[in-house]
Amino acid sequence: MSLVAEHASDAGGSDGPSGVLVIGAGLLGGSVGLALTRAGRSVWLRDRNPQSVADAVALGAGSPWPEMPSQEGLPAISCVVVAVPPSQVGPVMVDALAEFEDAVVTDVSSVKARPIAEARARGADLTRLVGGHPLAGREKSGARAATADLFHDRPWVVAALPETSPEAVSVVRSIAEQAGAVVVEMTPEDHDRAVALTSHLPQIVASAVAAQLEAHGERDVSVSGQGLRDVTRIAESDPGLWTEILLANSAEVAGVLGPLVDDLSAALELLGESDRGGDADPEHSQAGLTELLAKGNRGRARVPAKHGGAAADYEAVQVLVADEPGQLGALFAAAGDAGINLEDVRIDHSLGRLTAIVDLLVRPESAPALRESLAAAGWQLSN
Amino acid sequence: MSLVAEHASDAGGSDGPSGVLVIGAGLLGGSVGLALTRAGRSVWLRDRNPQSVADAVALGAGSPWPEMPSQEGLPAISCVVVAVPPSQVGPVMVDALAEFEDAVVTDVSSVKARPIAEARARGADLTRLVGGHPLAGREKSGARAATADLFHDRPWVVAALPETSPEAVSVVRSIAEQAGAVVVEMTPEDHDRAVALTSHLPQIVASAVAAQLEAHGERDVSVSGQGLRDVTRIAESDPGLWTEILLANSAEVAGVLGPLVDDLSAALELLGESDRGGDADPEHSQAGLTELLAKGNRGRARVPAKHGGAAADYEAVQVLVADEPGQLGALFAAAGDAGINLEDVRIDHSLGRLTAIVDLLVRPESAPALRESLAAAGWQLSN
Repeated sequence: MSLVAEHASDAGGSDGPSGVLVIGAGLLGGSVGLALTRAGRSVWLRDRNPQSVADAVALGAGSPWPEMPSQEGLPAISCVVVAVPPSQVGPVMVDALAEFEDAVVTDVSSVKARPIAEARARGADLTRLVGGHPLAGREKSGARAATADLFHDRPWVVAALPETSPEAVSVVRSIAEQAGAVVVEMTPEDHDRAVALTSHLPQIVASAVAAQLEAHGERDVSVSGQGLRDVTRIAESDPGLWTEILLANSAEVAGVLGPLVDDLSAALELLGESDRGGDADPEHSQAGLTELLAKGNRGRARVPAKHGGAAADYEAVQVLVADEPGQLGALFAAAGDAGINLEDVRIDHSLGRLTAIVDLLVRPESAPALRESLAAAGWQLSN
Repeated sequence: MSLVAEHASDAGGSDGPSGVLVIGAGLLGGSVGLALTRAGRSVWLRDRNPQSVADAVALGAGSPWPEMPSQEGLPAISCVVVAVPPSQVGPVMVDALAEFEDAVVTDVSSVKARPIAEARARGADLTRLVGGHPLAGREKSGARAATADLFHDRPWVVAALPETSPEAVSVVRSIAEQAGAVVVEMTPEDHDRAVALTSHLPQIVASAVAAQLEAHGERDVSVSGQGLRDVTRIAESDPGLWTEILLANSAEVAGVLGPLVDDLSAALELLGESDRGGDADPEHSQAGLTELLAKGNRGRARVPAKHGGAAADYEAVQVLVADEPGQLGALFAAAGDAGINLEDVRIDHSLGRLTAIVDLLVRPESAPALRESLAAAGWQLSN
């Protein structure tokens, strides 16, 4: 924290505590303001929409930026956090670099290379520019949905340009850490390729799968389980925002979507061959589909779970629980009494009945003790 | 239950309690045996692999079928449940209809039309044939993974043929209900179209998305969140089994995969246009992507959640919880003390730190009281 304060006052170029200006008082900007205010930073807020600033100020996210005709008497700003919609990030960063000549400028948007290229093309001072991307969000949007804990323990990518000064990187690292996040340093290009794969591709695919449901009858959709629910959960995301994200990263998204479409087209072809019975070698369809599914097994094993461990590290202890107030609490208390740490929990609800199947995920070595303890306490285990 | 017993003894054609023969003592067959044994039925088990029968018998799933040269002295069987791999279901059902002339024959496989067509083509007695499909499964397979509660509150599709007698349908309904499932009646064709959409399409897509991860570096995959985890969870499924399922329902799967590939190809084209800057009308890419994402919103809203309610019915109360034994238990106990029923729980784990963000999903009218109660008990709320 002392390092932070040093850099902050260095960059601010003043003796007093130097401030942070957040431009764009929506969910992310408001949450940055709340988190940094809690961490003791002086935060100012600016937004084209005065109501957004008022909402964020009312939550305690900072003070309204005093718009004045001259720089005279304005608060010292060491860092500007640009939290505007993806398509506006580039121009707003360029303007901020020009307006705040001593400040480091960063952003919180999902795509890095394109806005940075805009800044470079317009001759901005790139030594003070650092890309930023906290991997955090909520289903809700707007300043009123802002929360001081939005970034708690989330990865926050800090993406320096070749031109960026080490001091500027430190300023932005501090912002991310003070907001409670875990800093991950990557180049802007590596970041965009990574999120195209891990965030933008899943989004477009989840939306496309969910989109197929619209054309089908109620009864078709009724026979669905946790698989469909999981695959389509993020299809609830905001179409306007996501269109901007996908277009801002169009080359990288196309770069991962292309091979996926190829794989699915190949699977479609194999299914068609099998269905027409025109498959000269019946094992051809079989081998092709099995290979895709096995490749999926291997890819899935690479998805990081909690604390970077793999999902397969845990064993599920399955318990039947009545769907009544207090039942889950009693179950978890029983698990706590056994001194066993629950790594994760999945609740699979019933179709038309009032019981849930709860999977308590624990380290495999803890599973026997948990089973024994829950059984002794009268819980109905189903595995 | 009295209806069940009646039909069972009717179909069995004997005065004593008539039995159920399960052919295929794997996860599903073993679980059917366990559930029906618990419900008081007499269950026999048969499998090509004697070890599978021995495993299932050891669990308490029934008795080994006494293979004898003649029918003389064999147990009376009112229902044969075929629980063999998808590709073998048709032939095994045909043989069972011939061998057990008084029994109703059903199955538990994921695809209905193709095995039924095989039975029809081979002149089997279709009045005694009823398709069945419990929507239940586990990550593990084999008799040793069988559990009596596998079907608890799960949908179990009962698919009658035009030729099937009403009595045969009742026998299979009873089997499903005695196993603890919720019966859903559909035609075989409707079933196959429904599961192609809600189960087979999500599987192939989840596997294909996960498959893309294999070609990328560790660092790319490290920047991933709950979205990727949810979309790829079912990519852990068994490739051999799923190849059989997809091939057995190839026409229906192709029928839903085709439009999905079209939608993704269109999105790829829009991204490419945008990237090349060759888009004569820049709003064309934008409008096309927004429409796909909005269609995804509408489709997602149709996915049934708990008790058939929509996922959006619940509000998330977000709490920060230390990752220590007993903490989740204490939290849930606190929620129980407030007399509020938790509809669902999501736990979002940290990257590299030991705290979790727990979303307690409750009916919106319960959220304020839960927040108040948890805050009063000292829990750190983040929304």
